[in-house]
Amino acid sequence: MPAKGAVVLLSGGLDSATILAIAKSEGYACHCLSFDYGQRNSLELEAAGRVARAAGTDHRIASIGLGAFGGSALTRNDIAVPKDVEPEGIPPTYVPARNTIFLSYGLALAEVLDADAVFIGVNSIDYSGYPDCRPEYVAAYQAMADLATRRGVEGRPIRILAPLQKLDKAAIVRLGIGLGVDYSLTLSCYDPLPPEGLACGACDACRFRREGFRLAGVPDPTRYR
Amino acid sequence: MPAKGAVVLLSGGLDSATILAIAKSEGYACHCLSFDYGQRNSLELEAAGRVARAAGTDHRIASIGLGAFGGSALTRNDIAVPKDVEPEGIPPTYVPARNTIFLSYGLALAEVLDADAVFIGVNSIDYSGYPDCRPEYVAAYQAMADLATRRGVEGRPIRILAPLQKLDKAAIVRLGIGLGVDYSLTLSCYDPLPPEGLACGACDACRFRREGFRLAGVPDPTRYR
Repeated sequence: MPAKGAVVLLSGGLDSATILAIAKSEGYACHCLSFDYGQRNSLELEAAGRVARAAGTDHRIASIGLGAFGGSALTRNDIAVPKDVEPEGIPPTYVPARNTIFLSYGLALAEVLDADAVFIGVNSIDYSGYPDCRPEYVAAYQAMADLATRRGVEGRPIRILAPLQKLDKAAIVRLGIGLGVDYSLTLSCYDPLPPEGLACGACDACRFRREGFRLAGVPDPTRYR
Repeated sequence: MPAKGAVVLLSGGLDSATILAIAKSEGYACHCLSFDYGQRNSLELEAAGRVARAAGTDHRIASIGLGAFGGSALTRNDIAVPKDVEPEGIPPTYVPARNTIFLSYGLALAEVLDADAVFIGVNSIDYSGYPDCRPEYVAAYQAMADLATRRGVEGRPIRILAPLQKLDKAAIVRLGIGLGVDYSLTLSCYDPLPPEGLACGACDACRFRREGFRLAGVPDPTRYR
């Protein structure tokens, strides 16, 4: 019987590097998928490439035209990334329907590769402000996917797996360290400084990440500017 | 109060030209969205542009990287488009997760534009073999979208509307003719001949379309080769 297969949505950040390690540890043959959605994230894509290479998996990059839609600080250059502010409600870094688009590509690739699962690194603790990170969203996506796909019709649905769903950043770091993840390869910062991608240390992503390492009692390998 | 807005997914075919006319007739300010998903569909995109111009709406084309995934006769050049065969089960022209990806872009654009609805031209009569054309699929997509979006969280969900859902091709043609749709602008053929896009007359899409005009008692404006 061939190994079970998984598409792993890989952003190059801490969370997705951890789900890749989890998927591998569970015996999945992994196929990494990243998204090129505008000029801001080329350093992220380099990080994703490093993480996939270190894990010995293949890596595809899908170009998606979200930048043309505007609407978020992560895809437009004229909206400032917020620094050192407490999130309240839905943050401006929210990208409309982002996880829905990402999962849909993951679902398509899983059908093409006849893979059994799509892994996504969302969690509902750190990103409580994002509607499309909530457990009820992931469950609704699964229900939709079961009806959307050939495999679903055949009774072999593609599972949407979000193993970080209920974990905070410190728990994610501890889990990843236990699985041998080299977090120095990853990039979480929303506003990294080219060309090396030095982290700003001040955006939400940097703050969650730094606090995660601190609470996990693990040295932070992030290179700050 | 501003007009209600809609994103209309426009393929350049008969069905999507009809939903654009329906959306306009219902008072929606329409924003058309088409997808460039590989070399095969440039003639479709030209048709979509003609239809949008004739309706006086704006028109965006999102480039999506589906071609790199392979897996369907509509995105790969090395799988023959079936001709003159009765469909049985899921046809080879099925594109993995296609409507899921299309609706996800529609949902994202609707959030950016603060539009109230996304119109999609699926119907479950002619395309009974496609899992992602069934009413239960559209309902599940709506349930997911309600949880995925800022508007959903705010209690102003973006509606996923598939007004052709229960109609056969003849009924769609009759409806469109009544709304003044110029079907000579549209292209349905899976295998059109460049540069004019002359229809083959033999693929599933051509056969459904031709039969639709015949049963509706309307002259078929399609240019066959």
